[in-house]
Amino acid sequence: MKLNIAVLPGDGIGPEVTDQAIKVLQAIALEFDHTFIFKQASVGAIAIDETGSPLPDATLALCKQSDAVLFGAIGDPKYDNNPNAKVRPEQGLLKLRKELGLFANIRPVKAYDMLLDKSPLKKENIKNTDISIYRELTGGIYFGEKKLNDTETVASDLCEYSQEEIERITHLAFKAAQTRRKKVTLVDKANVLETSRLWRKVVKQVAAQYSDVELDFLFVDNAAMQMILNPKQFDVILTENMFGDIISDEASVIGGSIGLLASASVGNKHAMFEPIHGSYPQAKGKGIANPVASILSAAMLLDHFKLHNEANMIRLGVEKSLQLQITTPDLNTKHENITTDKVGNFIEDFISHPK
Amino acid sequence: MKLNIAVLPGDGIGPEVTDQAIKVLQAIALEFDHTFIFKQASVGAIAIDETGSPLPDATLALCKQSDAVLFGAIGDPKYDNNPNAKVRPEQGLLKLRKELGLFANIRPVKAYDMLLDKSPLKKENIKNTDISIYRELTGGIYFGEKKLNDTETVASDLCEYSQEEIERITHLAFKAAQTRRKKVTLVDKANVLETSRLWRKVVKQVAAQYSDVELDFLFVDNAAMQMILNPKQFDVILTENMFGDIISDEASVIGGSIGLLASASVGNKHAMFEPIHGSYPQAKGKGIANPVASILSAAMLLDHFKLHNEANMIRLGVEKSLQLQITTPDLNTKHENITTDKVGNFIEDFISHPK
Ligand SMILES: [Mg+2]
Ligand SMILES: [Mg+2]
Repeated sequence: MKLNIAVLPGDGIGPEVTDQAIKVLQAIALEFDHTFIFKQASVGAIAIDETGSPLPDATLALCKQSDAVLFGAIGDPKYDNNPNAKVRPEQGLLKLRKELGLFANIRPVKAYDMLLDKSPLKKENIKNTDISIYRELTGGIYFGEKKLNDTETVASDLCEYSQEEIERITHLAFKAAQTRRKKVTLVDKANVLETSRLWRKVVKQVAAQYSDVELDFLFVDNAAMQMILNPKQFDVILTENMFGDIISDEASVIGGSIGLLASASVGNKHAMFEPIHGSYPQAKGKGIANPVASILSAAMLLDHFKLHNEANMIRLGVEKSLQLQITTPDLNTKHENITTDKVGNFIEDFISHPK
Repeated sequence: MKLNIAVLPGDGIGPEVTDQAIKVLQAIALEFDHTFIFKQASVGAIAIDETGSPLPDATLALCKQSDAVLFGAIGDPKYDNNPNAKVRPEQGLLKLRKELGLFANIRPVKAYDMLLDKSPLKKENIKNTDISIYRELTGGIYFGEKKLNDTETVASDLCEYSQEEIERITHLAFKAAQTRRKKVTLVDKANVLETSRLWRKVVKQVAAQYSDVELDFLFVDNAAMQMILNPKQFDVILTENMFGDIISDEASVIGGSIGLLASASVGNKHAMFEPIHGSYPQAKGKGIANPVASILSAAMLLDHFKLHNEANMIRLGVEKSLQLQITTPDLNTKHENITTDKVGNFIEDFISHPK
């Protein structure tokens, strides 16, 4: 397969972790006979410095022409801590998501055996947890009409969803479940909300096209409990924008390290892959940034193009690195001086010389 | 102090746990020289059986004349599992809350030293957790206008809040904080929602009247993480209806047992106190129902009338019972045959003969 990949390393540790993801993707291309063409462009604070805009036109054009976007991280204290700043790095990311029509946010949550002790939850409750959360990203109450009356004493926010908005992400969630443990849990509040009742109706209709996938339902308040009590019960979670925001952030602490968490944002034509973590400017250039979230974003990119064997090879490499504690200092209690680069090299080498 | 208390035992284990709460309140009355007058009335499935209504007029009238309502639990499989049932026990509770104008739901969450092992969270993360969650109960998206278009392809729910709705619960939360660790955390999503921005503005204004209480802010998605990572940081949490539903249910699993969780629902004129747990019909009459949630509801009742020493005496009795494992089988690994009644008797005795 030939893929044009736009690389937007961004700020802080963005470039150094993205370098490792590229390294790993190049090893996959060689090993599996694909052609991945990487073109870099600037975004975030560095783009403001260079062009005045956090998302220069050339960057947006490159992303639109590419098959996928590999994103690093953005944010710089120079803008974040300046209340007079007129443009902010984060605006680049929001505009990019909107311009590319990315309507589904995908967040995998996995409890790695080697890291069970790092979780705030008890080992026995989280062992074997492996969840993929599908959150609707462009609708619902975050984007609905906002009102404030003249006396500023009454405010409102409208939560609205259409059948079409629900259908498109539901298909993605069910297709993903088919490649996993074949179960989708819709998280809603259908006992109270009209939008949730529409979600249930539409999701049930779509589910009829995927007879091999089991569908169940959970109210969001109960889901917030179940995520702590028994996260292993979940395979694919499907939910609307705000519930997804809350539940995916809650779930993000299960694994015990934010340095491992990747995400994808997907639309009909475009897709973007990025770590959950921020630009961590204090760590920039020190070789201590954990590249695994970025490397796992690359695996999600491959999954998106149905290159599941290739994606799994990356995941095996990551697990091997965790097993042998070839990890950056945030996770390492055994070895000193394992740098960002060394972790990337280990996983690259694992792919090039699989055992 | 003289208090008229309406007692609504309800269904299942409701009557037997409520009996223990009354026993304990009577011991408090004797020891502290108060007069508590208890009058019983029926609610729930038993009221449907007797009168056809889950909230008979006589019951509502009694509640309106009383200073407080002590509520047991409602629900019966005979109605719950019958799709043709026209009246349901739960309607009695919803109507009662509405008729009494109960706009604030208060849920304490405490990690008892003796039960740390029962929590799904690691001991060291939850030890000393002691939170009181103030959830707005009659406004927001659960009660806003609901719409579904003619083709049933677009649905919406309106989240609306007024200054007055926010002010009244905010005063309750700050007054509670003054008797505790003097910190209120407002959970909202003010970076996105207009209603959250109104909450922030109004809460800041009210906070100015409570200079001894610290106020901070947390986005709801971050709060869902912090509740797992570091619940000890919270004293009083103040939040709107839906966020409160999600966060309080999430927090309810921290303590490791739902049999200990009490709640209050408070309005301008009336107040109701009840365990979180349901009617647990399978356990009815077996003497295995944990009465502690109901007994702690009685302590909340006393707090509501500023009888804090009395409330603390009950809490000390509960802690002593946990320490000595004078607990029902759900929590007991040491003694057999400690019944609902024996737990009530122990705490009654602790109050009558404090050591
Ligand atoms: Mg979030
Ligand atoms: Mg709830």
